[in-house]
Amino acid sequence: MSLPADLQEAFDAYERALATDDVAALDDAFAAGPRTLRGDGDGLLVGHDAISAFRSTRGGIAPRVLDRVESRQLADDCWLIVATSRYEGGGSGLQTQVWQLSEGRWRITAAHVTGRTRSFDTSVWRTVGDPLYQGAFDGPLLGLRVAVKDVFAVRGYRIGAGNPTWLREAAREREHAPAVLDLLKGGASVRGLARTDELAYSIAGANPHYGTPANGAVPGALPGGSSSGPATAVATGQADVGLASDTAGSVRVPASYQGLWGLRTTHGLVPRQGMLPLAPSFDTVGWLTRTGATLELVAAWCLDDDAPPLPSRLVVPSEVLRLVDPATREAFESWAPGTVEEVEVGPLDAWFEAFRVVQAAEAWRAHGAWIDAHPDAVGPGVRERFAIARDVTASDEASARAEVDRLSGVIRAIVDDAVLVLPTTPGPAPARTDDLEHVRAATLRMTALAGIGGLPALSVPALRVGPAPVGVCFVGPRGSDLSLIRLARSLGGPA
Amino acid sequence: MSLPADLQEAFDAYERALATDDVAALDDAFAAGPRTLRGDGDGLLVGHDAISAFRSTRGGIAPRVLDRVESRQLADDCWLIVATSRYEGGGSGLQTQVWQLSEGRWRITAAHVTGRTRSFDTSVWRTVGDPLYQGAFDGPLLGLRVAVKDVFAVRGYRIGAGNPTWLREAAREREHAPAVLDLLKGGASVRGLARTDELAYSIAGANPHYGTPANGAVPGALPGGSSSGPATAVATGQADVGLASDTAGSVRVPASYQGLWGLRTTHGLVPRQGMLPLAPSFDTVGWLTRTGATLELVAAWCLDDDAPPLPSRLVVPSEVLRLVDPATREAFESWAPGTVEEVEVGPLDAWFEAFRVVQAAEAWRAHGAWIDAHPDAVGPGVRERFAIARDVTASDEASARAEVDRLSGVIRAIVDDAVLVLPTTPGPAPARTDDLEHVRAATLRMTALAGIGGLPALSVPALRVGPAPVGVCFVGPRGSDLSLIRLARSLGGPA
Repeated sequence: MSLPADLQEAFDAYERALATDDVAALDDAFAAGPRTLRGDGDGLLVGHDAISAFRSTRGGIAPRVLDRVESRQLADDCWLIVATSRYEGGGSGLQTQVWQLSEGRWRITAAHVTGRTRSFDTSVWRTVGDPLYQGAFDGPLLGLRVAVKDVFAVRGYRIGAGNPTWLREAAREREHAPAVLDLLKGGASVRGLARTDELAYSIAGANPHYGTPANGAVPGALPGGSSSGPATAVATGQADVGLASDTAGSVRVPASYQGLWGLRTTHGLVPRQGMLPLAPSFDTVGWLTRTGATLELVAAWCLDDDAPPLPSRLVVPSEVLRLVDPATREAFESWAPGTVEEVEVGPLDAWFEAFRVVQAAEAWRAHGAWIDAHPDAVGPGVRERFAIARDVTASDEASARAEVDRLSGVIRAIVDDAVLVLPTTPGPAPARTDDLEHVRAATLRMTALAGIGGLPALSVPALRVGPAPVGVCFVGPRGSDLSLIRLARSLGGPA
Repeated sequence: MSLPADLQEAFDAYERALATDDVAALDDAFAAGPRTLRGDGDGLLVGHDAISAFRSTRGGIAPRVLDRVESRQLADDCWLIVATSRYEGGGSGLQTQVWQLSEGRWRITAAHVTGRTRSFDTSVWRTVGDPLYQGAFDGPLLGLRVAVKDVFAVRGYRIGAGNPTWLREAAREREHAPAVLDLLKGGASVRGLARTDELAYSIAGANPHYGTPANGAVPGALPGGSSSGPATAVATGQADVGLASDTAGSVRVPASYQGLWGLRTTHGLVPRQGMLPLAPSFDTVGWLTRTGATLELVAAWCLDDDAPPLPSRLVVPSEVLRLVDPATREAFESWAPGTVEEVEVGPLDAWFEAFRVVQAAEAWRAHGAWIDAHPDAVGPGVRERFAIARDVTASDEASARAEVDRLSGVIRAIVDDAVLVLPTTPGPAPARTDDLEHVRAATLRMTALAGIGGLPALSVPALRVGPAPVGVCFVGPRGSDLSLIRLARSLGGPA
């Protein structure tokens, strides 16, 4: 029983379009409308629009030939085609397609694709081992596998900072960073060095050199950054703890986008030796986990257990509620446990601007000489950010710093008698096609609150917006890190 | 449009059977007969029998819950169900099923399954990096990524030998093994340390501690060993060169099973310092590649280019033709380029027995004390082999060694004026359910010919038996390694 000639022709044309990445032809081969399905290892896309958006950023497939094609007629107007393929560069693939005839044209109404196996995904990891470093043979963290963001010193390895030029020039580290050593002493093992946005200066999670890690929760969406590798490793079960840094949201944003727990610790609480700096006034160490229980274990081991009790009031900044996507606001308002009072923090633009200028000035101080010496080494987004940072004058910085100090007083006063709760991000993880500058600007207006205050901020995967997670962020007084975790766990929701 | 009640019931029952690994129920949920399909990242299984055999060895799936279920009616008696799932341990899965009604029962006639993403497959790799070691910045091997079998010294890492107890006690290596350094000097980079059967004392490719790497060419089949990790890494395009050892077939067998080029070098030609010994009288260094061109590049760099010209006659041992599977013999006979004369080598049992006893005596000398100190550290197959090895007496060994010397003379005389060609293995990669002791015994009867002679042996992916590859093995005089590669390439066939 062989394929009808017109279906064979449609199938062949589809294969040719795949080989040449003819996006228009590929779009046309899939049935229009909201019921069309396309799934792969990253998840399931539903509807022609979602599939088309995914395809517009994929950038073609690796060269391959079909190996074996099995076809089954399911109805007069419906066939199943299952084909295996061999890639020129090694490896095999599998595709399952349902083809249906409608208005005289065969189109795909459902597809399931498996690309070639990657036993080592270099978009997520730079170096990985089973384990890469064995921790203590006993301790409360025994059995936990840590994905270390590639901005921390791990003995015997270089720091790669998400950039191949940086990596090439780096020397091997002689000692573990204290934040790494703490986890090893507790019995955790280092699984590997996980990818980061270049120099950690982004919150999108895209890396122009090594590719963009898959979002473990939302197919085709950005993973969030800059701790993209640790977040994806944890979300996909390839590690249990992400050790990461958070300057402007680099732990909180990927936690929100991928449905993880993520703690940005109180500024200065966890030592930052052996961690690549970005903007030391705001740089903090943080952890990403799948569960609140694991995060509490890690925080209880790494922090002194003398966190102050928290105020019982919960407040949310009105300005944040007005900024976030309507669907996210709605999800947040129906989540809110008991009474959450609104509080005014003043225009978020002021928070953002003060934060941005001080961050830029410090980032330039940390890396400007290197950027000048390697003008073509970084990708467009980060290059542009450094170009702006270069132009921050001493007087710009001084005024911004004065404003940071003033705002820090504002936010610290608020959390003295209330826990701040807010959506972690303006909405769920954006697609790669979205206007990322806009998303970045809105997000930093929210993450700057804790950043400016030097406050601990915990993102908890409490909201769903459509099928996608969005975090709720708990911000408390300095040193209340562990209390925040316990509060969030006591409120129920995801474990 | 929701599922008919009886289909919903069948779907739910199938999910329950998956959760409890109820193999009988799972088998019953799939339509009987040779047209049923089930595919995943390892490839496509066709027919109920193949699917059932796969399932009998899988051992259940990780705990997960269904996340989103999409259903589409394709005909009166036919539905498509696509479901995503979330694993308790992190990560998501996707399943596509075609359900058809036949004789009043809904059954699956086609399924495509994607389990949770593994960004690091620990059945293939122990430690891996991008790169793990950078080679010279120029050289003929530039760009080639090497999977190093975990029996070679790589500076800064321990040798794991496929066994966790061994690994725990190993010290970090201070220098690269010469075989590693040679590749680095040529511009290749080390991608990672790849898995091996325990102490390299097996040719199956199954490891009881770390799992069995997927066969890159035959879904569900054994990968071949003991160089299983390097072979799978190369077959799946995750590395370009496997650096491996071959004592009794550990390069040739996985090459045959996975459709690769594999060279066992002339005994003593490539230095074995820094390589874990098994039986030094037969231990050799070897390489695995996807193409003859890459293998020639590597061999031309690592070996002196003074290989003697080869005799123009080709001969095949009659005893081997009688031993191999009928389908393999048929494929070999239709492959044979021009005239291949038959030659007698005497009973293969004698070759096997002499080889086996000397190998066992030397393996015990190399590792017996360690085995005695760690009686429960190794899995059943290797444990049994060492138990036999322990009992080889000095006089057993002396007679076997005399026989090895005699047979070595026989085979060297043959290759003095003819190139020996034979199927590399008795047949394609066995399923995990096959009688592996029988396969092992038959295979060693064939691989012992080159082993006893200390001769170079090149396996080339020239045969197909059904959909599976089988190698043709070229054996020449000592030092003819490079000439064998050039001869095999000149005969055409796979690049």
